[in-house]
Amino acid sequence: MAPAYKLTYFDVRGVAEPIRFLFKYGGIDFEDVRIKHEEWPQFKEKTPFGQLPVLEHNGKQVNQSIAVARYVAKQVKLVGKDDWENLEIDAIVDTINDLRMKLVQIFFEKDEEKKKTLKETAINETFPYYLTRLDTIVQKNKGHLAVGRLTWADFYFASMSPAFDSFVEGDAFGKYPNLKALRDKINAIPAIKSWIETRPKTAF
Amino acid sequence: MAPAYKLTYFDVRGVAEPIRFLFKYGGIDFEDVRIKHEEWPQFKEKTPFGQLPVLEHNGKQVNQSIAVARYVAKQVKLVGKDDWENLEIDAIVDTINDLRMKLVQIFFEKDEEKKKTLKETAINETFPYYLTRLDTIVQKNKGHLAVGRLTWADFYFASMSPAFDSFVEGDAFGKYPNLKALRDKINAIPAIKSWIETRPKTAF
Repeated sequence: MAPAYKLTYFDVRGVAEPIRFLFKYGGIDFEDVRIKHEEWPQFKEKTPFGQLPVLEHNGKQVNQSIAVARYVAKQVKLVGKDDWENLEIDAIVDTINDLRMKLVQIFFEKDEEKKKTLKETAINETFPYYLTRLDTIVQKNKGHLAVGRLTWADFYFASMSPAFDSFVEGDAFGKYPNLKALRDKINAIPAIKSWIETRPKTAF
Repeated sequence: MAPAYKLTYFDVRGVAEPIRFLFKYGGIDFEDVRIKHEEWPQFKEKTPFGQLPVLEHNGKQVNQSIAVARYVAKQVKLVGKDDWENLEIDAIVDTINDLRMKLVQIFFEKDEEKKKTLKETAINETFPYYLTRLDTIVQKNKGHLAVGRLTWADFYFASMSPAFDSFVEGDAFGKYPNLKALRDKINAIPAIKSWIETRPKTAF
């Protein structure tokens, strides 16, 4: 039987990786479709807003990676126990995504001189600002990013962490022991460990 | 008795306005705190990540406007009936936010020549691309942005619509009859109509 879920993205980890982590953690089978760049123009027409990833399920199609990750998190029981807990989880995920978006903007900056300055500011100011606060939050939440226990925010963070490492060209979390321990703890979960070892090797 | 919720933001509609619309729709009392720019540096230190809006409730504080709007939507019963419906709602909200972010980036562009080009592309290409698709979605969803009935996605859109009008310096939805009708329908809900008439008048 074909899997009930089909996730289509490019052949990279990118913003689909949190979704893949969550499916793997919950043992939910999914079709991990990775389209080639030459297929993209034709495929783009079939997507809701010209973007990937797209999740297909029961003949329906939906875009937006964080919304999809939240949906999968509900299926694999990695959400909060009430509305306020879910708010705290959602806020942390969006905050990590804010930091990620700042890096993406720098990545796409074409002016090399400007890019260098922006990157220095990001590494010397933006990163420490966010990571110091996130590290304290993990310390206060018994080793997790929200509500004092394992939630999809932890998976969102761990699955995205290699992108931050690439940006700083090293271990982005070396100075942040609580974040580093959390990342390592998620990556050591057997289903995640196995996925990291067997997933397609891609640059980002 | 003081309201159970305190929403702190700048004295503008901005990204807090969807939250205010949802509180007003549900008849939930909240403290609408609007800090002055001269108060911001001192206040910033007290926020989780140096950003507003911040929602306070039961002695807890949380950032991220869309996460807060989703939380309030749950309190006022404007969410989906199952996980997939909530995914569809979340995806539409994030898609409208994507479009908004494109405008924000242009707004902050300092190079006037580049800003002019970016604005032309936004008005001639990006806007029609998104709004044509959103208009069709509203047509297929019985006059709503998701799941065929009133949800917080509709309030998110209507509360943000003046920002789009400002950007195009006119009615951004004039050519999109379904979106225009939806916006007008939300704005005509008595609690919303009354809020629009009595809220502080601000430029954006």
